[in-house]
Amino acid sequence: MKIYSSLEEWKAFRPSLPRSLGLVPTMGFLHEGHLSLVRRAREENEVVVVWIFVNPTQFGEGEDFGTYPRDMERDLALLREERTDYVLAPEVEGVYPPGFQTTVNVEALSSVLEGAHRSGHFQGVATVVAKMLCLTQPERAYFGQKDAQQSVVVRRMAADLGMLTEIVVCPTVREPDGLAMSSRNAYLDAEDRRASTVLYRALCAAQKAFAGGERRGPRLCAAMEEVLRAEPRAEVDYAAVVDPETFAGLDGIEGTAWAVIAVRIGKIRLIDNLLLNAE
Amino acid sequence: MKIYSSLEEWKAFRPSLPRSLGLVPTMGFLHEGHLSLVRRAREENEVVVVWIFVNPTQFGEGEDFGTYPRDMERDLALLREERTDYVLAPEVEGVYPPGFQTTVNVEALSSVLEGAHRSGHFQGVATVVAKMLCLTQPERAYFGQKDAQQSVVVRRMAADLGMLTEIVVCPTVREPDGLAMSSRNAYLDAEDRRASTVLYRALCAAQKAFAGGERRGPRLCAAMEEVLRAEPRAEVDYAAVVDPETFAGLDGIEGTAWAVIAVRIGKIRLIDNLLLNAE
Repeated sequence: MKIYSSLEEWKAFRPSLPRSLGLVPTMGFLHEGHLSLVRRAREENEVVVVWIFVNPTQFGEGEDFGTYPRDMERDLALLREERTDYVLAPEVEGVYPPGFQTTVNVEALSSVLEGAHRSGHFQGVATVVAKMLCLTQPERAYFGQKDAQQSVVVRRMAADLGMLTEIVVCPTVREPDGLAMSSRNAYLDAEDRRASTVLYRALCAAQKAFAGGERRGPRLCAAMEEVLRAEPRAEVDYAAVVDPETFAGLDGIEGTAWAVIAVRIGKIRLIDNLLLNAE
Repeated sequence: MKIYSSLEEWKAFRPSLPRSLGLVPTMGFLHEGHLSLVRRAREENEVVVVWIFVNPTQFGEGEDFGTYPRDMERDLALLREERTDYVLAPEVEGVYPPGFQTTVNVEALSSVLEGAHRSGHFQGVATVVAKMLCLTQPERAYFGQKDAQQSVVVRRMAADLGMLTEIVVCPTVREPDGLAMSSRNAYLDAEDRRASTVLYRALCAAQKAFAGGERRGPRLCAAMEEVLRAEPRAEVDYAAVVDPETFAGLDGIEGTAWAVIAVRIGKIRLIDNLLLNAE
């Protein structure tokens, strides 16, 4: 496994690699969710590249950029076990050198839900992911479904800009009690950790109603809210049922829909989602 | 020479081509300036791709998108003579299909001079060029120096987004009387055509003063303005001496500087520039 911290060195090297390259973009502090992406990339590509970079531009003011958990040694050990070929681990000034001034915006999708609650977040995501995809020219890039709206923003951006990369979205990996794996779970104390299962329980309530035939968006939201209200530690940012392409709220559902939740538990903000299906 | 109008077909085909691919982006109605880029691309790459697309998003309201000159038959004949391998000639809805919503912005550079006079122009340019570069993954892409600020915007964008493409800027090709070649020259009537040489004459006045030792920006601008004022058909948008990297106006010049001019002659807006040098 070779580690590049210099993007200039990587740029000179990339053309010698084959087209069959799978990219897994991460912010590090890897968990089983990330590793499931690496394994899928390993199965489907000749070369596997993992990007580790806590990207400052996707954190808003007052968010947790400074305290976001980091453990490069451990991450590298985990990636070696998964037979990763290359790790790109640039410094902030390597990604954003002096004079940097380009932004990528996926406009409508960035203005709702996560985008509305985290101003500038998706501009930061779209810009850094565009840069990762340009730098690595992967045949496939792997993202987790846990960040549902991000996956749709990235897919839209890659399609709009004509990128020769397939965006592969992989299932959320969960703890035994249903909590979606996230680097931020490391912040939760014991009480908050117990309360955090409320997201998945609320999503399951929506899924149960949907499977039972409920197709009215507001009723599905009410089912989630009822569960969330019962957890006094949970402060809800949103609980919504949206179109899987546009992330616009849905009144009546034809076909499929995405139930999405953002909740604060203590100081920790958690998100989760389920794609509702009829079974 | 193979012509692709479907970008989806092109995307499926591109991976079979080698890395050594030179891209020449154009809006068609080709002249010797464009052909000089194609010849350079032909010399330096195994495969030459020319993009022909009059991009609506880089025209402002009231600008000449509808009347911009077009002649695809003639363009294709010229490109065949230059041994072009592939022409990408998509329709507007192929580049911007329903749901398209991604924009690329090179922020500071897009706010001055051409950017200030043509609101949204460089967002349109940066977005479509980003898309062209992602779709073709060229080793080299060729732009004319005539569109000086555009070349700097594109170079900045490609560097900021980590693109594996060298941006090659080629010298302006001029008519015998000094007028920079431009598709828009076709609009000029005989009187306006005579008046249009005023841009190059003004730039030469700045170059002469610079070669004579003048390093004060305002004095160099005054030298240009004196020439421009003498032509009653010319209405000046700007005549400036700027930093070649940032396009910020310069008071005193250390090293090199770029003299840039935008002038309306009748209904036609023309731009030109010279990189000032001490000889």
